[in-house]
Amino acid sequence: MEKEKIFIQELYESRFQHCFGCGIQNNDGLNIKSYPSNDKENVICKFTPDSIYTGGVPNNLFGGMIAMIFDCHGTASAAYFYHKKKGLELKKGQAIDRFITARLEIDYKKPTPMGEEITCISKLENMDERKAIISMEIISGGITRAKAKMIAVKAKKDM
Amino acid sequence: MEKEKIFIQELYESRFQHCFGCGIQNNDGLNIKSYPSNDKENVICKFTPDSIYTGGVPNNLFGGMIAMIFDCHGTASAAYFYHKKKGLELKKGQAIDRFITARLEIDYKKPTPMGEEITCISKLENMDERKAIISMEIISGGITRAKAKMIAVKAKKDM
Repeated sequence: MEKEKIFIQELYESRFQHCFGCGIQNNDGLNIKSYPSNDKENVICKFTPDSIYTGGVPNNLFGGMIAMIFDCHGTASAAYFYHKKKGLELKKGQAIDRFITARLEIDYKKPTPMGEEITCISKLENMDERKAIISMEIISGGITRAKAKMIAVKAKKDM
Repeated sequence: MEKEKIFIQELYESRFQHCFGCGIQNNDGLNIKSYPSNDKENVICKFTPDSIYTGGVPNNLFGGMIAMIFDCHGTASAAYFYHKKKGLELKKGQAIDRFITARLEIDYKKPTPMGEEITCISKLENMDERKAIISMEIISGGITRAKAKMIAVKAKKDM
């Protein structure tokens, strides 16, 4: 039997759950959800953007939407890899440290068609006490559409 | 008397006017608008994001929204600088070539408070026949909140 998925964004402290992209308390937002792969080496997000998020070129997804997905998925990935490095497992009801974006680089490789589910996959490149480097790609129809690299830093306690 | 502003996004060909961020034909979108500075050296966009676009940290703007603004404003800036390089002025009813994002790098310097107007300013770093390099910053309350660099390429005629 497949284990029930635990989504990283559900484990953020309540005050950090209002993000437009991934906050589970933002009723007007996208509610992007990220979860670790079975082997725990990657973090995955599957998402089908609404038809309003078209880009300048007809039938192609808005580049800003691609950036939004990378932004939320990258910080969730950083939170997960940090948690994992401390030797912890994801557990319902147990808060996970929040990371925020310091730098995000995106290469738009191919247009991303509208109306198709996209998969965003991340992996950890480097981690130290407060900073993670995450690489990501967005795939749809078996084709890599965009790649990204993020520097994420742990949110301070008084933020 | 101040001249009436012409917004770059209004001069895109009709088929390129559906972007969620800046398409004047996208009724569900943000309708970001960009215009050249008086001395034509910069392109400016002023925008106050809706309260739904909060980020993970309470009262701070969503990083993905900042990326969206850079994405739309950068491509509009590239279109303008390309048009200007050909010796042309912006004119109502005259279409302008559309640029699309190939690469976007963002450095998040300081949190951007919610509920305040932000200004995005761009300048041209380099331009050749099909490619522009644009640098940008987002300022609010007199403070630079984020910086970006974009590589934008001219959309092909058959897109």
